[in-house]
Amino acid sequence: MQNFHYYNPTRVVFGQGAIAKLSELTPRDGKVLLLYGGGSILRNGVHAQVTAALNDHDLREFGGVEPNPSLAVCLRATAVCRAENVAFILAVGGGSVIDAAKFIAAAACFEGDDPWRICTSGGRAIKAMLPLGVVLTLPATGSESNSGAVISHTDKQEKRAFGSPLAFPRFAILDPTATVSLPAKQVRNGIVDAFVHVCEQYVTSYTAAPLPDRLAEAILQTLVERGPVTLAAPGDYAARADLMWSATLALNSLIGMGVPHDWATHMIGHELTALYGLDHAETLAVVLPGVWRDQLERKQAKLAQLGRRVFNVDGADAAIAAVEAFFHALDMPTRLGHYGIDAGEAAARIAERFTARKTMLGEHRDIAPDAVRTIVAAR
Amino acid sequence: MQNFHYYNPTRVVFGQGAIAKLSELTPRDGKVLLLYGGGSILRNGVHAQVTAALNDHDLREFGGVEPNPSLAVCLRATAVCRAENVAFILAVGGGSVIDAAKFIAAAACFEGDDPWRICTSGGRAIKAMLPLGVVLTLPATGSESNSGAVISHTDKQEKRAFGSPLAFPRFAILDPTATVSLPAKQVRNGIVDAFVHVCEQYVTSYTAAPLPDRLAEAILQTLVERGPVTLAAPGDYAARADLMWSATLALNSLIGMGVPHDWATHMIGHELTALYGLDHAETLAVVLPGVWRDQLERKQAKLAQLGRRVFNVDGADAAIAAVEAFFHALDMPTRLGHYGIDAGEAAARIAERFTARKTMLGEHRDIAPDAVRTIVAAR
Repeated sequence: MQNFHYYNPTRVVFGQGAIAKLSELTPRDGKVLLLYGGGSILRNGVHAQVTAALNDHDLREFGGVEPNPSLAVCLRATAVCRAENVAFILAVGGGSVIDAAKFIAAAACFEGDDPWRICTSGGRAIKAMLPLGVVLTLPATGSESNSGAVISHTDKQEKRAFGSPLAFPRFAILDPTATVSLPAKQVRNGIVDAFVHVCEQYVTSYTAAPLPDRLAEAILQTLVERGPVTLAAPGDYAARADLMWSATLALNSLIGMGVPHDWATHMIGHELTALYGLDHAETLAVVLPGVWRDQLERKQAKLAQLGRRVFNVDGADAAIAAVEAFFHALDMPTRLGHYGIDAGEAAARIAERFTARKTMLGEHRDIAPDAVRTIVAAR
Repeated sequence: MQNFHYYNPTRVVFGQGAIAKLSELTPRDGKVLLLYGGGSILRNGVHAQVTAALNDHDLREFGGVEPNPSLAVCLRATAVCRAENVAFILAVGGGSVIDAAKFIAAAACFEGDDPWRICTSGGRAIKAMLPLGVVLTLPATGSESNSGAVISHTDKQEKRAFGSPLAFPRFAILDPTATVSLPAKQVRNGIVDAFVHVCEQYVTSYTAAPLPDRLAEAILQTLVERGPVTLAAPGDYAARADLMWSATLALNSLIGMGVPHDWATHMIGHELTALYGLDHAETLAVVLPGVWRDQLERKQAKLAQLGRRVFNVDGADAAIAAVEAFFHALDMPTRLGHYGIDAGEAAARIAERFTARKTMLGEHRDIAPDAVRTIVAAR
């Protein structure tokens, strides 16, 4: 194993009825901003549960955070925080709402001229943040118990990630029943997102970490086994719970300790979302097999291990095919053509951006823009 | 999965050279008590590394914490903390030193008449604690990143556990090279201790937690694969590292989330240590197969799963035999006779104690003292 530094102070309260714990978990010494997205929590009862639990807190509300939360909306919420002197942000939603909450919590305390610097600095520009908490309604991104976030600058068609040790939520409430009303497409996206999060920390050229490998495989096996059940039987509490905890552990630092990380698929995927508006998970399902085929030689041993231990197939090629088949079984396309996108054009545009930013990808940081062009053109 | 509450704020700094990080991790605003055990850290260079890293801190030292740390020694160290107005305790050692540090940190702030109440109350009597940090030299107990501890009252021949959310170490430094000079017996004990910690949270009658199960199996598989390598090749850094991280994750709350816990083996084992002085791990290896055979019907499905997934054998009986064979291969006895202890006498003494304390064991809290007598008498 490689040297590592592990720290994750987020308190996770998991299970049916957990939203009632908000009352004791949310600080009372100041205003609380309840941040949410498109309003599904108004229809599925979660908003009512949250406000009931917080009936003796001083609440303000801000709805309308979009998927791939935009700088513009985040800055509007930041202005509310400043005007109202908000002391705590409660994100109720999925990864987009949580990521927005992290940005807003940083921007509310940001003293520079341009808060977009929070993202372009990768988070290094953050000196202070408001504390935040989470009620998760969509298992997918892991943002509920990690220190990262991704924000979109719509005008620039850019999607940029940042992180800060100050960005860990104080608590994350995970009630699987709050996910029952999700559309199948969002459940599917969540399964694929969590699956690829694990792969980015597992399918590398590094083969000297038996414990991190097996922790990663534990999550992948659970997603492969329980993901389809969640889709087939939306009311199955146990399957929802298995999916929810899997998605959190897929990206809360733990499984990535002691091993190198890839993240090439995510970096390329962010560009596909920024340029063409694909859902985050949709981009991952398209890009992942492409990165693997391009890096087949170096990732061969780990891909074969993935195939053998998770899908019961032999060899790296069979493993890639098994992952594609798993995505297809979830009704998740793996080709750009499905979205009417010309792969050659997308490849050229993304390579141009990475060239301008001097971006190098992969666990060896040696996948140059030219290689990215080849990878995307083949999708 | 069952509802759960997960929280673990300990910062883990892992790898070769990590001890140098002490300088920045240890607070400078007050005296630091360096607590250690029998002095092996004076011989293997760890003491020199620690004091070099802390050369601009105000250090006091207290050595001589025993295996199964005694109330008497802990109270002597507590008196030093009070007399010197110590602000931070740095435990350098294995589980015994860390457990002692937790007790001392609580006792230094304890306002009642009898600090043994810290243990007899299970930790509920703790209102405040000094902060503490850890340099781990013996992978085994997981105490470096959990909130529990076990202290022995030698006069009463009692060994009692306590826990408190205040007892999490602020940091734990895990440098596998600090474990290279350990005697084989202590390495063996650590492997068995970690293995049984996992089993106590995994081999129950509960079969509705695919992710926690697989996380548990990930650690067991790693211990089975890498434990023997650590013993055969003491200088193998990679194997040491795998063992060290496995032992930490075996008991830092994570794998026990969402599932019931047994701990019958530990509770009976503590009595064997208190009465006969066996090493903690030695007691576990003796008791575990006995508890499993007694609870075979209820644990059957999970034992069969353990056998299939970890040892590649079929059925509950074969799984128990495989675990015993694993212990024997590590040179770890599984019978009281090996220690010259009369099983019938031990059974009667332990059952009498549990009767007096009204102790009920197992994940269903229904293993009564009579059943404990049967279990121990058969060992």
